[in-house]
Amino acid sequence: MQPYWIWYPGDFSLYHALKQNFSRVERGFGWPAFWRSEPFRQRVAFRCTYQLSAPTTFTVYTDAVGYVMVQEEKYPFGVEIPCPAGEVSISIHAGRIDAFPAVYIEGEVVASDEGWMVEDYADPPVPAGHSKLYTRRDQDPTVPEYTEQVYLPVSVEAVQGGTLYGFATELTAVLEIDAPPEQFQGRTVYCGETREEALAGKDCYHFWQPDRHGRCPRCALRYVFLPGPALPVRAIHQFIDIPVRASFQCGDPLLEQIWQAAAYTFRLCSGLFFIDGIKRDQWIWSGDAYQSFLVNRYLLADAEIDQRTMYALRGRDPMAAHINTILDYSLLWVLGVWEHYSLYQDRPFLERMYPKMRGLVEFCCSRTESNGFLFAAARDWTYIDWADLDKDGPLGAEQMLLAAVWDTMAAAARAAGDSQAALEYQQHAEILKSNIENCYWDADQGAYIDSYTSGKRHISRQTNIFALRSGIAAGDRAQSILQNVLLNPDVPAITTPYFQFYELEALAELGQLDAVLDRIRTYWGGMLDLGAVTIWEEYKPDLPREEQYGMYGDPFGKSLCHAWGASPIYLLSKYFIGLRYPGGAAFELQPQLRYFPRLDVRLPIGEKGWITLTWDGRELTVRSNCGGRILWKSQWVALPCPDGGETACTLTA
Amino acid sequence: MQPYWIWYPGDFSLYHALKQNFSRVERGFGWPAFWRSEPFRQRVAFRCTYQLSAPTTFTVYTDAVGYVMVQEEKYPFGVEIPCPAGEVSISIHAGRIDAFPAVYIEGEVVASDEGWMVEDYADPPVPAGHSKLYTRRDQDPTVPEYTEQVYLPVSVEAVQGGTLYGFATELTAVLEIDAPPEQFQGRTVYCGETREEALAGKDCYHFWQPDRHGRCPRCALRYVFLPGPALPVRAIHQFIDIPVRASFQCGDPLLEQIWQAAAYTFRLCSGLFFIDGIKRDQWIWSGDAYQSFLVNRYLLADAEIDQRTMYALRGRDPMAAHINTILDYSLLWVLGVWEHYSLYQDRPFLERMYPKMRGLVEFCCSRTESNGFLFAAARDWTYIDWADLDKDGPLGAEQMLLAAVWDTMAAAARAAGDSQAALEYQQHAEILKSNIENCYWDADQGAYIDSYTSGKRHISRQTNIFALRSGIAAGDRAQSILQNVLLNPDVPAITTPYFQFYELEALAELGQLDAVLDRIRTYWGGMLDLGAVTIWEEYKPDLPREEQYGMYGDPFGKSLCHAWGASPIYLLSKYFIGLRYPGGAAFELQPQLRYFPRLDVRLPIGEKGWITLTWDGRELTVRSNCGGRILWKSQWVALPCPDGGETACTLTA
Repeated sequence: MQPYWIWYPGDFSLYHALKQNFSRVERGFGWPAFWRSEPFRQRVAFRCTYQLSAPTTFTVYTDAVGYVMVQEEKYPFGVEIPCPAGEVSISIHAGRIDAFPAVYIEGEVVASDEGWMVEDYADPPVPAGHSKLYTRRDQDPTVPEYTEQVYLPVSVEAVQGGTLYGFATELTAVLEIDAPPEQFQGRTVYCGETREEALAGKDCYHFWQPDRHGRCPRCALRYVFLPGPALPVRAIHQFIDIPVRASFQCGDPLLEQIWQAAAYTFRLCSGLFFIDGIKRDQWIWSGDAYQSFLVNRYLLADAEIDQRTMYALRGRDPMAAHINTILDYSLLWVLGVWEHYSLYQDRPFLERMYPKMRGLVEFCCSRTESNGFLFAAARDWTYIDWADLDKDGPLGAEQMLLAAVWDTMAAAARAAGDSQAALEYQQHAEILKSNIENCYWDADQGAYIDSYTSGKRHISRQTNIFALRSGIAAGDRAQSILQNVLLNPDVPAITTPYFQFYELEALAELGQLDAVLDRIRTYWGGMLDLGAVTIWEEYKPDLPREEQYGMYGDPFGKSLCHAWGASPIYLLSKYFIGLRYPGGAAFELQPQLRYFPRLDVRLPIGEKGWITLTWDGRELTVRSNCGGRILWKSQWVALPCPDGGETACTLTA
Repeated sequence: MQPYWIWYPGDFSLYHALKQNFSRVERGFGWPAFWRSEPFRQRVAFRCTYQLSAPTTFTVYTDAVGYVMVQEEKYPFGVEIPCPAGEVSISIHAGRIDAFPAVYIEGEVVASDEGWMVEDYADPPVPAGHSKLYTRRDQDPTVPEYTEQVYLPVSVEAVQGGTLYGFATELTAVLEIDAPPEQFQGRTVYCGETREEALAGKDCYHFWQPDRHGRCPRCALRYVFLPGPALPVRAIHQFIDIPVRASFQCGDPLLEQIWQAAAYTFRLCSGLFFIDGIKRDQWIWSGDAYQSFLVNRYLLADAEIDQRTMYALRGRDPMAAHINTILDYSLLWVLGVWEHYSLYQDRPFLERMYPKMRGLVEFCCSRTESNGFLFAAARDWTYIDWADLDKDGPLGAEQMLLAAVWDTMAAAARAAGDSQAALEYQQHAEILKSNIENCYWDADQGAYIDSYTSGKRHISRQTNIFALRSGIAAGDRAQSILQNVLLNPDVPAITTPYFQFYELEALAELGQLDAVLDRIRTYWGGMLDLGAVTIWEEYKPDLPREEQYGMYGDPFGKSLCHAWGASPIYLLSKYFIGLRYPGGAAFELQPQLRYFPRLDVRLPIGEKGWITLTWDGRELTVRSNCGGRILWKSQWVALPCPDGGETACTLTA
């Protein structure tokens, strides 16, 4: 077994999350994220006991200070350490201040692989953490493992007394000038997501003085402007290479192009963590990440990035502030952990998270009132969406999420064998749902209101969509919401792609697939029509192209490569290809073939599974290395689990 | 007002405590302290509002990433920022991963001095922290401010095929070879606290390969051995220069020499923090620090080193483990904070500490049983002393300390205006004392027992000394303990200088000054007779000189410069010079002149006060810049507070 770097579980994420959340640079100054930053541990001890049939040796590599203890003998790091036969207890004592302590143990028998425990002198020992990204001794776990790809400009234009270089697509790149230092020293390089931004001088987000090697810091760019004489430049695109495990051909060029742009956008925003956007904020936001978890399962199905992101968001215990300061983002984190577990079924991870889930809901409970409604304490942010919600008193939408959280906690407690807690959580859920019914349901309007304290009885899509999503509104009530809210033009429209994710999901769940596909074509297609190569943070179809780039009162404030725009991958896969994950290596397929002239699709199933669909308008062939069932002409067709091989079936329309 | 570097209060200590506790190096490997390490904050915001009568400018210096916000405008660090007249709100947003964020603000009006608040996005804003050691823009608060003093060897001896260099005294020094690199490269330098250690090869604690400048890392040394040809060497002694504010001449050369050695030892162990010893452990131990607080008031009277040490020990909230893992060390921390406040009366510091004191006793309460007795949970260490105590069940000595802690908490709560808590703490004290009486007092033996659960009814000096110290045993009971324990040769003797501190203090409190002075002369004098220039961690009068250096099964394991050996300063000042601090700028003097042929003594009173005593065997002259009273021929003689000048009086025997 290949050894790997080991550390205290979660500390890799806490350290790199600090780097990530402090990496935002805007017009020459840094903008570290404005929420509580959670520190990594500086002093840990790794322990493992071996039963050795013969003497052996091993070596410990680390940048920490400390020592290795074999039985009662101490050794320094970096030297070959002898180990006698028999039962041998090894401990590694490591301290580091500027980063988290990590060690790599190399030896024929004694190595840093499974079985190592780690402690921090506060909590009981836990299994050591590791990553499949860090398996080689010559790696440094404090440095992101970037894959590099060199891009040369595809356009070079003399303009504004300088040269504008255009690249084929948007990149997270180090711009490098290939010229002697005297030719670039003292000159400024302007980077832009668009031509307009690169030419906007000090209004563009990222401008740099190249270092003595002619290199600028890694940043989002598609265009680069260099005032003065032209020089040869190249962009070294740096990314964490998480393989794409899905492909989507459907015979509809627009949908295929939307899928491609969404997938490319998603990959750019998927590094060590799910971040919101690559130019702005480059921060780890829980609400954005939650949607990324749902896209991830259909595109990369990489469990580790989910887990790294969940560790980074939740931080350490006890909780002292909401995740990203936002009520709903704390709640979405709980839902995300459980949905992750439901698919990947990584039990050790759930065991690490369950106390953190409990700690989070305990923290939330300290901010609930007599009805069990979650309210915002001083400095808490009730976000939900950039929209006009009636935020007087406890907000309806938050209670819908909280109800889902109580249900989730009950399920998680059952999975963790904590039946007493499961009962309590279930009671919380029941009481809350009953109080929601009494306070927020408006029978006259046939919908839930945002606030029961203001007296305005304001209806929003957001609150009702979360009521649907939490299972509070089903059956007739769901139909009522569909008619009175979702299909009602008098209820203000959703304007953010963030909440369109939930709106289109709700419409799809209610069978409104035509409307969903129509929106995908017009909204996402609209961006592509304007030349987008990645999906934007926001898109207002009514605005002319030149006004599309501003946001937050800033002429180039909008992020043009924003993860939450990747939702078509989720919507197309789940509701049109019709793939659902009942959990583990299994699938459930309800393909909506009427929307596609043909299909050639591959999708992942958890960490190791895959499924392919081929459809020629007449015959559907499904192959998979997992078992599952397909709904075909209103009948479930079962595909047995192939147990190491493949299963396949062909169905005729 | 000179500006200073500002940071989140306590974070300077948390960062440097990590460095301090990770600095121990032993025979080529690092030995980071084995307890929970408390991280500093990585993301903070400083805020201040100014009422500006005219426009002004200021500049912010820092190694953090972030920005400055003036009203709604953002600026980078390091540039001159304009400020309009009127009410101006300034915030500074700073993030740093490898060290704590600190800023220095320079400007005619806007500067980093009083009035800045800081927040960490979890707790409410608090006044920013700072240190009188960091007042210049060109300083780096992450680097200790060492004063350097160059020592040349006072002896050079050809021995064992190399050269042994001896220095005049023990140093914390960088050894530097003044020769071309080719003459020292690949050679090893052996440092020792003694000749024997420096010549012991790989058995000595600190041996180094000099760097390319011929320098070895800073370490404790008095002797240096260089195998092979002699080269010119010098020792660059590096220390935090905290001025000594006491002097002691008494006409008794031995006592003067003991005072000098104790004072020098204490200064070497007083850096950014009170550490135990300069060779070993170089760690911040709460029990050692508590005694240092008591010595400090008579020698340096530096409040900041107390406070830095208290912050470093207590760490962050909530408490998850005892300080240094030791029950008694948690309790001593509470006593230390209160005694510090009683003398220096720094109210803002008490306000920062009071919640931490509360948090600590809450943590302790989670480990008390039905009698209110503190017990050791798994992985807790019941230390008290290196001695054979009967540690079955809750240990008596711990309960004595806990009783003192409850009394202290009641006093602290009253000072903090928290009268409800004061009442509760007082109740805790009363219940605990009553239960101690029932369970631990042994009327037959006339003393307190260590354990009431084992049935052995074992008597130790330690438990009874802490009973005296906590005020549980007074009057007749104190006399009973004096006769049955302290003066009883059948009760095992104290062997550590650590607990001799408490034993001699107890004897002095009970008026046994002859015995105390005799012990100082023989025990401390005994070390000096063996050539000590600093006071040792332990001294066993019966052992020959060559066996004095071993400890913990290690031939050079004993620290030969150990802070807890400085107690003669405390004992001589408090019980023989007779100076007590009633609090603030005031003194109470009960000189025991019969012990001294003459006196020429100066002692500090808090941060700014001083007192001098001159005694010629006939006349005592006392001068001070504080007011106080002197006990003279059984009468109190009052000296009024001189209010800016000096007060003086001469008394005749």
